[in-house]
Amino acid sequence: MSIDPSDALVVGVDYGTLSGRAVVVRVSDGAELGSAVYEYPHAVLTDTLPGGVPLGPDWALQVPSDYVDVLRHAVPAALADAGADPAAVVGIGTDFTACTMVPTLADGTPLNELPRFADRPHAYVKLWRHHAAQPQADRINKLAADRDEAWLPRYGGLISSEWEFAKALQLLEEDPEVYAAMERWVEAADWIVWQLTGSYVRNACSAGYKGILQDGRYPDAEFLAALNPGFVDFVTTKLDQPIGALGAVAGTLTAEAAGWTGLPVGIPVAVGNVDAHVTAAAGNALQPGQMVAIMGTSTCHVMNGDELRDVPGMCGVVDGGIVSGSWGYEAGQSGVGDIFAHFVETQVPAAYSEAAAASGLTVHEHLTRLAATQRVGQHGLVALDWHSGNRSVLVDHELSGLLVGETLATRPEDVYRALLEATAFGTRTIIETFAGAGVPVSELFVVGGLTKNKLLMQIYSDVTRLPLSLITSAQGPALGSAIHAAVAAGAYPDVRAAAARMGRVERSVYTPDEAAAGRYDELYDEYRQLHDHFGRGGNGVMRRLRAIRRQALAGTTETGTTATTTTETGTTSAAEVTR
Amino acid sequence: MSIDPSDALVVGVDYGTLSGRAVVVRVSDGAELGSAVYEYPHAVLTDTLPGGVPLGPDWALQVPSDYVDVLRHAVPAALADAGADPAAVVGIGTDFTACTMVPTLADGTPLNELPRFADRPHAYVKLWRHHAAQPQADRINKLAADRDEAWLPRYGGLISSEWEFAKALQLLEEDPEVYAAMERWVEAADWIVWQLTGSYVRNACSAGYKGILQDGRYPDAEFLAALNPGFVDFVTTKLDQPIGALGAVAGTLTAEAAGWTGLPVGIPVAVGNVDAHVTAAAGNALQPGQMVAIMGTSTCHVMNGDELRDVPGMCGVVDGGIVSGSWGYEAGQSGVGDIFAHFVETQVPAAYSEAAAASGLTVHEHLTRLAATQRVGQHGLVALDWHSGNRSVLVDHELSGLLVGETLATRPEDVYRALLEATAFGTRTIIETFAGAGVPVSELFVVGGLTKNKLLMQIYSDVTRLPLSLITSAQGPALGSAIHAAVAAGAYPDVRAAAARMGRVERSVYTPDEAAAGRYDELYDEYRQLHDHFGRGGNGVMRRLRAIRRQALAGTTETGTTATTTTETGTTSAAEVTR
Repeated sequence: MSIDPSDALVVGVDYGTLSGRAVVVRVSDGAELGSAVYEYPHAVLTDTLPGGVPLGPDWALQVPSDYVDVLRHAVPAALADAGADPAAVVGIGTDFTACTMVPTLADGTPLNELPRFADRPHAYVKLWRHHAAQPQADRINKLAADRDEAWLPRYGGLISSEWEFAKALQLLEEDPEVYAAMERWVEAADWIVWQLTGSYVRNACSAGYKGILQDGRYPDAEFLAALNPGFVDFVTTKLDQPIGALGAVAGTLTAEAAGWTGLPVGIPVAVGNVDAHVTAAAGNALQPGQMVAIMGTSTCHVMNGDELRDVPGMCGVVDGGIVSGSWGYEAGQSGVGDIFAHFVETQVPAAYSEAAAASGLTVHEHLTRLAATQRVGQHGLVALDWHSGNRSVLVDHELSGLLVGETLATRPEDVYRALLEATAFGTRTIIETFAGAGVPVSELFVVGGLTKNKLLMQIYSDVTRLPLSLITSAQGPALGSAIHAAVAAGAYPDVRAAAARMGRVERSVYTPDEAAAGRYDELYDEYRQLHDHFGRGGNGVMRRLRAIRRQALAGTTETGTTATTTTETGTTSAAEVTR
Repeated sequence: MSIDPSDALVVGVDYGTLSGRAVVVRVSDGAELGSAVYEYPHAVLTDTLPGGVPLGPDWALQVPSDYVDVLRHAVPAALADAGADPAAVVGIGTDFTACTMVPTLADGTPLNELPRFADRPHAYVKLWRHHAAQPQADRINKLAADRDEAWLPRYGGLISSEWEFAKALQLLEEDPEVYAAMERWVEAADWIVWQLTGSYVRNACSAGYKGILQDGRYPDAEFLAALNPGFVDFVTTKLDQPIGALGAVAGTLTAEAAGWTGLPVGIPVAVGNVDAHVTAAAGNALQPGQMVAIMGTSTCHVMNGDELRDVPGMCGVVDGGIVSGSWGYEAGQSGVGDIFAHFVETQVPAAYSEAAAASGLTVHEHLTRLAATQRVGQHGLVALDWHSGNRSVLVDHELSGLLVGETLATRPEDVYRALLEATAFGTRTIIETFAGAGVPVSELFVVGGLTKNKLLMQIYSDVTRLPLSLITSAQGPALGSAIHAAVAAGAYPDVRAAAARMGRVERSVYTPDEAAAGRYDELYDEYRQLHDHFGRGGNGVMRRLRAIRRQALAGTTETGTTATTTTETGTTSAAEVTR
């Protein structure tokens, strides 16, 4: 039986930190017809392996069979939810957290599935927020800076402990036997596509942003040997692999994967994607100047540009990192929604939580309502939004929060609003840095949990003097994956064309109020003075306070180490909000 | 009947902001045998006069007959509480808030008691915290600085809006008729003594600290005329009066006053005192280097010195201002306990207030208990204690609070402890400034509500590296007044001798822990860098935020003025804590 092209469907699967979500989408217009979520049975391993082997501080592992279970459960459930005929599905696409790494044999078998390695932590998936490779990252950064490596500016000057090289180097140095047995070091984004197709294609996005692949080259053998002699052939023996462009066909659905999913054997499977980056397609925000902000606990910014520029403090710039043919830029704010949440959890008195409950509001909503009655600047406060450090543009996770202007008249809603504004100032700082480097931003596309807060959205528009467009899909990344599936299936010539038809966005929902914007200019001036003073060497108090804190905590524990490690918030954590 | 000298008693009366407190004290050893409190019937007038006439913002008036009512009620009640024979009382002394001013006729009749002025706000007592004379204070300060007046450095470079000249100039300019009828401008501290004795003696303390009497001279006529031509003869016609040394006899108890109090006619009445300063005698802290800190909502510091020095940012230095024969120095922190209270009221979540209640603790006690388990520096925070501005040593009430170092791991007890420490750093800054000006501090005597907090006291000792002695009288100022009464009665040759026998102090209750002190040195270094950066022109953000706030608030009201006035915390408000 043949399918009317107007009825053709695609499936997008978004792999988050705790669950996978499948969505069934109509190719012709992007309508989301049904969806389903499947929670990973093993969730995130932070304390012990399933067999009880304890893990160190800042470890975060996953079990790869959980990802296959998503295919078995969420995809059929989404098809059922949509009331869809599986035969109408013409392609499937996926996206994943990153950098999440699977150590495998040459055939893709995860090492943890080998009985001899079942009790070896390094045989498991290192989740994006596994933060135990910081010492390795520090050495990578120092060596790269000393050697003036050409690729370092492509990452704003800093390689994260979350990324492929730091995690692999930790594996080598802490469990050489597992490292020796590891024949491939695979992004989970590519591993799941491997499971669907039977062939291993490395996606351009992960390889570029997380794998230090620039201009077709990885860090060279001399660099690797200087890190550790045993690391010299890491790229050639374990990492390198043909690169697939985003939206290209990685392969076709195997009979086994068709059995898991209920989808037709042989349909095209798109090259893997990263959750944050694929969201740009979901919002049809693929033109230069259209910056996408995925706003949740943290914020991730992605934007295409026609030219390659070194933007100080960006997370990375990758050729084809968002869409083929453009340079994909990424930046991030390491704390946004989590700062607001921390404030609500730790600094709002009972009278406020009771008043909120009496009004049927959350505390966030209650504070927002109170704050919304204020005029700009009325609270007399300026904050620095560095409670989780600063990803862009300072790239310094030893920074911390600051609040100035408090008096005895300061109320909780004043501080709450100052924190909302501080994150907007942080976004403006990124936008101005991009513009200063020749990558202007003309429009902000927002998506994620925080976009529900209308006051926050208006503040962002006023502070940045940009129109805000709202990506309205309830499953942004999954829709983005479905769009890539449609391209892989040949329904559209490329991702731009598919996004233009299938993306879901309301343009210019918020526009700047010029009077407010003018008043915010004054507060932003104050923010930038504090930003540069505390972030660029005027006063290193924040770093020293962290050191003093570590020393003090070391004095309270036997080892002096377990309590002192600071966590680094990863660039992809921002995408978690859309799940 | 004659009284055995060992049974001789004195009465001290302490006039606070809302009430007067009388204490009956044994002359021989300072034992406090009984006390009583009487609340002023009219309390503080801030909205209207008793007849309904409205008052402007920042006004604070009192009704002088309330002070006489304290004599009628509290003194007899204290005698009864002590089970004392009134005939055993050999003298009476008083102390008062300052600068609290009574406009009177030449016979001491308060102008508000004249029927024709009963509805005129300027005919009433201007309480110390009447803050509506700031424009006049600003002009006084500018003119004094322009003319390089020799007396200005004696006040750390700034005359307060609370003091005699600013308040009188406001009276002249806003109600010339009342000003013209006013024959004396009297400190309430002296007015009450006038009521007891029938004669007007001006005490050296108020005249020096609040009346700009230095080296026997007031600001000259040229200066006064430059402020306002009508002010030229203010000193000669309304202010000047013979000065009485502290502890000297102002006169003897009149029959009328004996009738009010139940005390013997003709007993000596001591010259008036100021509440904060008289506390030094109550703690027998009269030697150079013994700094008294009266710690409550704010903190007032008083200390004797043998030499006259200009200490930058002090409140004042007055010859005989604390005890005759010494230079009395005063400094202050405009926010201390009120900062802690504001934190508890506005920034502590329900879980903490509930846990405190479950443990039968106040929230302060609960937070203190949690904070006490920490090691120095563990919270990773430094705060500036400027929520009410900074009195000493920056003399700038446009400054505001600052907190640096907050992360998502920061807990309420962390911030609470950082605030406790910040006020200790503020005290250390004052002590170091005194030492740097040649007025070293060797011991800290503490009194007031905050001394109950043992963690706070230990922090002060560690941060200042000074032993802390505790003034243990439950009625510090009233005991100090009683000591002055004993001197006036001739029971002791001078205040020092009386304080040595009658003062109540436990020496060195807290001593510095060297390990903690060393760690605090690091945090104090951070405090001082922030202090100088934000307080001395490195970044004027705090002033600008206040201006932005005033502009924003002006936009929300018709007049644009009522909501924008900032209040200045007076130097004597610190003494309020002991009541």
